[in-house]
Amino acid sequence: MSGRKRKTKTMIIVPEKEIAGLLTRADAFEAVEKVFASMSKGSAYNFPVIREAIGYEDALYGFKGGFDKAGMALGLKAGGYWPNNLEKHGEINHQSTVFLFDPDTGKVKAMVGGNLLTALRTAAASSVSIKHLARKDAKVMGMVGAGHQATFQLRAALEQRDFEKVIGWNYHPEMLPNIERVANEAGLPFEAVPLEGLAEADVVISITSTFAPTIMADHIAPGTHIACMGTDTKGKQEVEASLLARATVFTDEVAQSISIGEAQHAIASGLIEQSDVHELGAVINGTHPGRTSADEITLFDGTGVGLQDLAVASSIVDLAVEKGVATIVDF
Amino acid sequence: MSGRKRKTKTMIIVPEKEIAGLLTRADAFEAVEKVFASMSKGSAYNFPVIREAIGYEDALYGFKGGFDKAGMALGLKAGGYWPNNLEKHGEINHQSTVFLFDPDTGKVKAMVGGNLLTALRTAAASSVSIKHLARKDAKVMGMVGAGHQATFQLRAALEQRDFEKVIGWNYHPEMLPNIERVANEAGLPFEAVPLEGLAEADVVISITSTFAPTIMADHIAPGTHIACMGTDTKGKQEVEASLLARATVFTDEVAQSISIGEAQHAIASGLIEQSDVHELGAVINGTHPGRTSADEITLFDGTGVGLQDLAVASSIVDLAVEKGVATIVDF
Repeated sequence: MSGRKRKTKTMIIVPEKEIAGLLTRADAFEAVEKVFASMSKGSAYNFPVIREAIGYEDALYGFKGGFDKAGMALGLKAGGYWPNNLEKHGEINHQSTVFLFDPDTGKVKAMVGGNLLTALRTAAASSVSIKHLARKDAKVMGMVGAGHQATFQLRAALEQRDFEKVIGWNYHPEMLPNIERVANEAGLPFEAVPLEGLAEADVVISITSTFAPTIMADHIAPGTHIACMGTDTKGKQEVEASLLARATVFTDEVAQSISIGEAQHAIASGLIEQSDVHELGAVINGTHPGRTSADEITLFDGTGVGLQDLAVASSIVDLAVEKGVATIVDF
Repeated sequence: MSGRKRKTKTMIIVPEKEIAGLLTRADAFEAVEKVFASMSKGSAYNFPVIREAIGYEDALYGFKGGFDKAGMALGLKAGGYWPNNLEKHGEINHQSTVFLFDPDTGKVKAMVGGNLLTALRTAAASSVSIKHLARKDAKVMGMVGAGHQATFQLRAALEQRDFEKVIGWNYHPEMLPNIERVANEAGLPFEAVPLEGLAEADVVISITSTFAPTIMADHIAPGTHIACMGTDTKGKQEVEASLLARATVFTDEVAQSISIGEAQHAIASGLIEQSDVHELGAVINGTHPGRTSADEITLFDGTGVGLQDLAVASSIVDLAVEKGVATIVDF
């Protein structure tokens, strides 16, 4: 069919259940790495985020949109957090859907289930940060957090270096087998450690949802790369603010990092300034040197941006069309 | 099928081409009147609007979302204005799509073509204002603007009173036959008038896109109801600001009216205050008396809110299901 005909008369639907069979970690990684680079070059930007407590079912609902002129991805992820879903409906609490529009015409182009996509793009972000910022000789991978999302983060992280061991801590130790299983699947031993034990790690990912810091500055040894993936709201905090002053700080988007990300606290208390927070995309592009010594602590503040969702959804649509599993509907 | 099953496994699609056969002006009117009432009662609210000049194709793109707890409508309209569409692609320049979500679970529920819907909901808004604010004995209907949208406004307006004549003005007089045709279809004579001739009108709708006022205060006679439907952006203006000081001013949403609507200029120049701008919903609910004399000028500042789109889209989905023309897809 002609491009024009498809543009004007149909759209593509990729249901949630198809995503697992379509999107590999490598695809998500490539899409996220590319869009971080585009953001840093200024050829892609995120719109202001809408996030509303709607006063019903304790739900948080909103939209994360953006436009990537390089990748020609325009649209938004819509959805949010419905805390009663699991109990009341047997559904996961985070629910989202990505909508892609045709930048040439403004017509809707595709709709993609956003749940697994969000897990994979979030894991891809910390994995991209490890690729570009962790020491090449990193051997010990440390996890803080052992929930559902932690398993995605760890799986993606382990692909970036020749790790020899995984260590982990979780507020509820009974959840640690979640990440132990992932370590073992990758052929690596797992060890539960106290927070002080994180000093052994060369790379740390924290993926928790808390309003007080769990990781203190002296838990992290020189030379470590730490990716803080749990803070996406005003007030949340995973690591002691003084750690950011000791580290070279990178993020997906500076504006989010200093307002709703992990850097909000170090900024608010004057420990660092906005100019101390660098785009990971600049490292990918080569306009920032990234890590410059084996003793440096690098910290990636992953806040999560709409462009990640659009980039990964675009890849999914291409894959779904290629593999013939896309639903094409009149619209 | 069970409610739970539908919620979790499928969604409803109503393509643009089906809307004309589904949505009557009466349906749009009822949906808009009801949601204005809900907004005024506080049981429905609009989210902040996202509106972005994306730096490509001179397009304006964005999201208007909201939640109506009374009508259980949650979601957004996404889309915008692509000024080159008609010439380049043979498509209309305004393109939008409405997405409805299930307030119980956060899962996407339906997707509805938003182009005709937008025209009909905008026409319904001025029609609702005429029903509640124009004199019962209104005989002469005045139009300022004669483009595509003007025909929708006029058609909906003529249903509200026993009009005997339509008069009209347009910057390009050669477009007046657009609205003359609608008048004649309703069995009414049409007369082109200079702007001074508007004094004869009992009801005026202005639907233009300009950055300087067209209608001066002395063009409007005492007792007239005027609906200003063209101003939805900072800087735009259809009527002289002093007319708002002479009139009782109503709007769909006060926050929009005073910032991006027709009232922005009268507010900025101190001619009126925010407390002088009333919700049309309050008149519908009976908590504001509306027009209180035959000599009063009433002015409706129709800025256009996302809840109108959600309300009308919800009606369309119900009608599509009822008439068996909804497309049901796995999602």
